[in-house]
Amino acid sequence: MSTQMLEARAGRITEEMERVALQEGVTPEYIRERVADSRIVIPKNTRRSRSKICGIGEGLDIKVNSLMGTSSDRNDKAMEKRKLQLIEEAGADAFMDLSTGDDIDGMRRQSIASSNIAAGCVPVYQAANEAIEKHGSMVAMTGRDLLDVIEKECEDGMDFMAVHSAYNRQLFDILRKTGRLANIVSRGGSILTAWMHYNQKDNPLYAEFDKVLEILKSTDTVLSIGDAIRPGCNFDSLDAAQMAGLMVAGDLAKRAIEAGVQVMIEGPGHVPLNHIATTMQMQKRLCHNVPYYILGFLATDVAPGYDNITGAIGGAFAGMHGADFLCNLTPAEHLGLPTEEDVVMGVRTARIAADCANVLRRGGRAWNRSLAMAKARVNNDVQAQIDNALMPEVLRERLAREPKHDHCAACSDGLCPADVAYDYFFGDNA
Amino acid sequence: MSTQMLEARAGRITEEMERVALQEGVTPEYIRERVADSRIVIPKNTRRSRSKICGIGEGLDIKVNSLMGTSSDRNDKAMEKRKLQLIEEAGADAFMDLSTGDDIDGMRRQSIASSNIAAGCVPVYQAANEAIEKHGSMVAMTGRDLLDVIEKECEDGMDFMAVHSAYNRQLFDILRKTGRLANIVSRGGSILTAWMHYNQKDNPLYAEFDKVLEILKSTDTVLSIGDAIRPGCNFDSLDAAQMAGLMVAGDLAKRAIEAGVQVMIEGPGHVPLNHIATTMQMQKRLCHNVPYYILGFLATDVAPGYDNITGAIGGAFAGMHGADFLCNLTPAEHLGLPTEEDVVMGVRTARIAADCANVLRRGGRAWNRSLAMAKARVNNDVQAQIDNALMPEVLRERLAREPKHDHCAACSDGLCPADVAYDYFFGDNA
Repeated sequence: MSTQMLEARAGRITEEMERVALQEGVTPEYIRERVADSRIVIPKNTRRSRSKICGIGEGLDIKVNSLMGTSSDRNDKAMEKRKLQLIEEAGADAFMDLSTGDDIDGMRRQSIASSNIAAGCVPVYQAANEAIEKHGSMVAMTGRDLLDVIEKECEDGMDFMAVHSAYNRQLFDILRKTGRLANIVSRGGSILTAWMHYNQKDNPLYAEFDKVLEILKSTDTVLSIGDAIRPGCNFDSLDAAQMAGLMVAGDLAKRAIEAGVQVMIEGPGHVPLNHIATTMQMQKRLCHNVPYYILGFLATDVAPGYDNITGAIGGAFAGMHGADFLCNLTPAEHLGLPTEEDVVMGVRTARIAADCANVLRRGGRAWNRSLAMAKARVNNDVQAQIDNALMPEVLRERLAREPKHDHCAACSDGLCPADVAYDYFFGDNA
Repeated sequence: MSTQMLEARAGRITEEMERVALQEGVTPEYIRERVADSRIVIPKNTRRSRSKICGIGEGLDIKVNSLMGTSSDRNDKAMEKRKLQLIEEAGADAFMDLSTGDDIDGMRRQSIASSNIAAGCVPVYQAANEAIEKHGSMVAMTGRDLLDVIEKECEDGMDFMAVHSAYNRQLFDILRKTGRLANIVSRGGSILTAWMHYNQKDNPLYAEFDKVLEILKSTDTVLSIGDAIRPGCNFDSLDAAQMAGLMVAGDLAKRAIEAGVQVMIEGPGHVPLNHIATTMQMQKRLCHNVPYYILGFLATDVAPGYDNITGAIGGAFAGMHGADFLCNLTPAEHLGLPTEEDVVMGVRTARIAADCANVLRRGGRAWNRSLAMAKARVNNDVQAQIDNALMPEVLRERLAREPKHDHCAACSDGLCPADVAYDYFFGDNA
């Protein structure tokens, strides 16, 4: 089987590379070169066709991921389908189905069938759930179970997958020596910690990494190396365990690249503003500049209810320093399962963060959009304002409710600065 | 009359300096030194007593300002009083009353009487409005009118005031030569542009700056040098006109310092993420490191409906690079007048930005708060989580609606990572 990466290395430009190049306003050769040398991934399972394709990585617009899925106590497939539709409408480039309710297979198939954007998942969740169901405990899960789930998910069409391979017993020892406050907050990481202890064996996703690669390669599913030991609070950020984990992730990324498997790396999580530049630089350096998928970053721990905003602050700043793919946070983070309204707010907030950072990454595109918006405001061209807004529906709805005054609606008393000053720049008094 | 600055220079520690020191966890001498050399201001009109005092500037927590006030077509004093109460409850350190409805005097007096935080205003709004009422045109306003308004506002107890002195005919010529897209978006700047043209004279707030200083000094009202020619879109950021304006602002700041008048400077506005570090550095450098009060920054122009978030991204990053005082943006920015809900969201969002940046400025305090929150989460101590949340009421309300699961409520299926991993770090299996 071939992959985008192997095709690119062979000098071939795939249809997907062409589509990405067109969207991003670069040449197909620009994309091919970077897919070949692992700086760009194109999540596109060979068994799934879908209408929206995106590239993630160096020199491209930052992409946004959102999360959905059932849990054992909110197991409503219809609601998750609606959420997925809202996520797509809100402009996400990808989603991950994190379902842990019953019928995870059925849920996944519904998600893949009902969406047009890149689909991701986390195999260890399903494997652990099935082990609990079948054997009463997640530690009863076998390495074979894990590989079987991965295989099933790839065959169903998953475009990318968070596989928690960059975690092993040695890293657990480092974690304990380091002495963290919040230890492990990754669900995958905690499951594998329990598993390694009970079975006195190394994490199968690490030990059998070559098999993982083989499966992913068969459908060109992008490997997203899950961040099993990401710091769980600002206080734990940039500790020895995190750095040691990055070294393991870097080794695995290299092996994926050698195998021709597209790869990106998942990053934290909780990162204070003064650690963001260093975090991104170390991540990129130790992991051979493959694309980085980050969860936030949450730039402070103290704003539950508004973690979409703490994530936008951290995400924009991380994007400026090299993050390629932002997982949104919703206002429900740390509070409960997100509602439909929460997921829309999450996607919108992450898109704003991405746009802010895109100005640095790309110059042209994000810059031109802000420029077009500024012109539309100066010209009092409401339609052009709507056309250039990141969330045109919000502007349209607000304008329908509240007829717009000139320029920006804020000044309704004859003291609009744009109007007052206009004549002295362009008008009769110029 | 004396001012905090003159007292500090004479080596005296005022009651206000003591209170600020206590709040910030520094010594009174730390505050005195910085008030003396103009790196910290304490807005506190000598004629107004109020329960909440704050210091703004080097080494202190970033402070948050919010806006309220009537306009000619929404002239509801009771609503503005409620807004002010909400602003204070949401945790703002200061507000500005930007009223332009009728009875601006009455409105201002109501605002000052009904609040306990620092009060600010913009005298040129009232002077222009009165000129329109009395003479049919804002250009009929005289220099004397402007000084009279400033005097009245100081006597009523205004703690700080945006005075648009850093704008003159020479700067207008530079603006025109520079060739901006959005020219002038400052309301004060546009009024003064019209005035200078019609009257063929220089801006009275510039020409009669010594008189302005004399009035402000008499009540120790902090001069906030208004940013009359701030860029109005990302495209205009860091242009020659902006730099020339900063030079004039720097000259005036020096004159204020010499006169013993507490001074800070108002900054933009629209600043793309890749200009923020440079903007803050040039502002601080050209304006002698006096405290900086910024409007945002809005890090992108394309998210109307969510400018509280674009402002939080820009504000956090600016705070990291030296901004001392953040003016909030509400979701209504560029759309219309903010509702009560909008102002609450505005204050909360700006406080999150401030907290993110405080980690860098102070280390200790913001850091300790995030640390306490992390401990509360690890210990599943809901009350401590509420106590350490920036917006405890949001957390409290959410928990009342949705009873909290362990740690963070997100995992309700027996796969909570904190629970699963706990035993391997601390419990029976450790």
